Amino acid sequence: MKINLDHISMILHQPHYPENIGAAARAAKNMGIHRLVLVSPRDCDLTRILKMATHAAEDVVADMEIYDDLRDALATCQYIVGATARSGSHRKTLQDPKKLVRELVPISQQNRVGILFGPEDRGLSNLELKYCHTLVTIPTAEFASLNLAQAVMVLAYEIFLAGREKSVPHVPRLANSHELENMYDHLQEALAQIHFLNPENPEYWMFNIRRFFSRIGLQAREVKIVRGICRQLNWYFNQRSRSAGLLPAQSQGSVAEKEMAASASTKS
Amino acid sequence: MKINLDHISMILHQPHYPENIGAAARAAKNMGIHRLVLVSPRDCDLTRILKMATHAAEDVVADMEIYDDLRDALATCQYIVGATARSGSHRKTLQDPKKLVRELVPISQQNRVGILFGPEDRGLSNLELKYCHTLVTIPTAEFASLNLAQAVMVLAYEIFLAGREKSVPHVPRLANSHELENMYDHLQEALAQIHFLNPENPEYWMFNIRRFFSRIGLQAREVKIVRGICRQLNWYFNQRSRSAGLLPAQSQGSVAEKEMAASASTKS
Repeated sequence: MKINLDHISMILHQPHYPENIGAAARAAKNMGIHRLVLVSPRDCDLTRILKMATHAAEDVVADMEIYDDLRDALATCQYIVGATARSGSHRKTLQDPKKLVRELVPISQQNRVGILFGPEDRGLSNLELKYCHTLVTIPTAEFASLNLAQAVMVLAYEIFLAGREKSVPHVPRLANSHELENMYDHLQEALAQIHFLNPENPEYWMFNIRRFFSRIGLQAREVKIVRGICRQLNWYFNQRSRSAGLLPAQSQGSVAEKEMAASASTKS
Repeated sequence: MKINLDHISMILHQPHYPENIGAAARAAKNMGIHRLVLVSPRDCDLTRILKMATHAAEDVVADMEIYDDLRDALATCQYIVGATARSGSHRKTLQDPKKLVRELVPISQQNRVGILFGPEDRGLSNLELKYCHTLVTIPTAEFASLNLAQAVMVLAYEIFLAGREKSVPHVPRLANSHELENMYDHLQEALAQIHFLNPENPEYWMFNIRRFFSRIGLQAREVKIVRGICRQLNWYFNQRSRSAGLLPAQSQGSVAEKEMAASASTKS
């Protein structure tokens, strides 16, 4: 089976300079990657983009997807990698590019993968990194800040090399970012309800929970199970409150029934 | 022993755009390479170079060497790699970057190494490639033409990774390009004299001879031996011509004496 790179996107979050967008398009095209996504670019001057993209990468530029919001841009991705130079206390495990692509290319055969790059001046914030399943850092000498399009090139190059392997291990279809983010919202709500989360800083524990789930590689049906548990928790909580006379009585279906209903709603 | 990358230069031959020079300086600096050489750049606008180099690579730009002539620029290099996307019939063996750097980094510990990049629009010509000991081609999808600074980045990145190894095999000091080019001039003259070379196309056989010598990795004393043979050939030729009454008699020293004299002159 031929390895394909069609499910891999380079996602530029808030890029400042059209030249970097164009150079990133050219680099992606050089390495057989055709999907470029922009999230609220500061300047999308097509003349300046195309000058750097060159004629050969015009199709990548023409097919570029542009979003206002990062969560929307990532919604269909089933695996998201954050490219970052920094390493802070709350960061997920950093991988080097060679190790990353050995995992990434197999995942990308059945799943949409996004490589997320932050803006030129500050990179990705912790808030933006929370969407990522894993982080990659390009090894450098002391001066660690790569030009945006250069970072795209190095990762695209490593992906292309990994794509030349004879075969890759099978990785099943994973839940996408839309399903996962709804699950995290649901979890946060449920955990707040039972006072597991500190209402002053709910993000602290949620960050750790995300880290834990990111490592697993959840499939869509597993996401539904987690949400089923959240709903059951919610029901139990309301039940108890009702017993204590705090809430009016209501009918309560089985967990499985609710799960089916939720399964339909997550597709909306 | 710590591996150092101080003897490696990125050499840009006739670059057209200052932005590419600046981006190449930044990429080199990112990967711990500090020597950038320009050969007859079309435009050396320092403001445009520095904008892309960023503050962090200012020192690389300040220390840049600029030459008018390629042969002069390469003179002190003991190993020269040509970066090229094309592969023609008369090209030397093309290596991929990973294989290249496994050889290159050991060589660079005792020798000055130059990675030569051609102009943006046409790359390196066969005439320019003749100076190279080996060629490297960055693997790509169908669209093979990389932006100049992107090509610098990919090779610098691979060099940096190879430089992180614990140790490298020992490679002795090699003859530099100045010594080699003088040897090739000498060889060409001697081979023309004995009618080995077709006077209408002397480059054809010289190209093959260069290819053969490039693979050996000649040391300075071996270059002197080859030049000694050329001189002896020249003496023998003149001797025979004299016997045939075509040239006046002259005194002829030993081969060894001539070699010593030539050894002094090659240092000029």
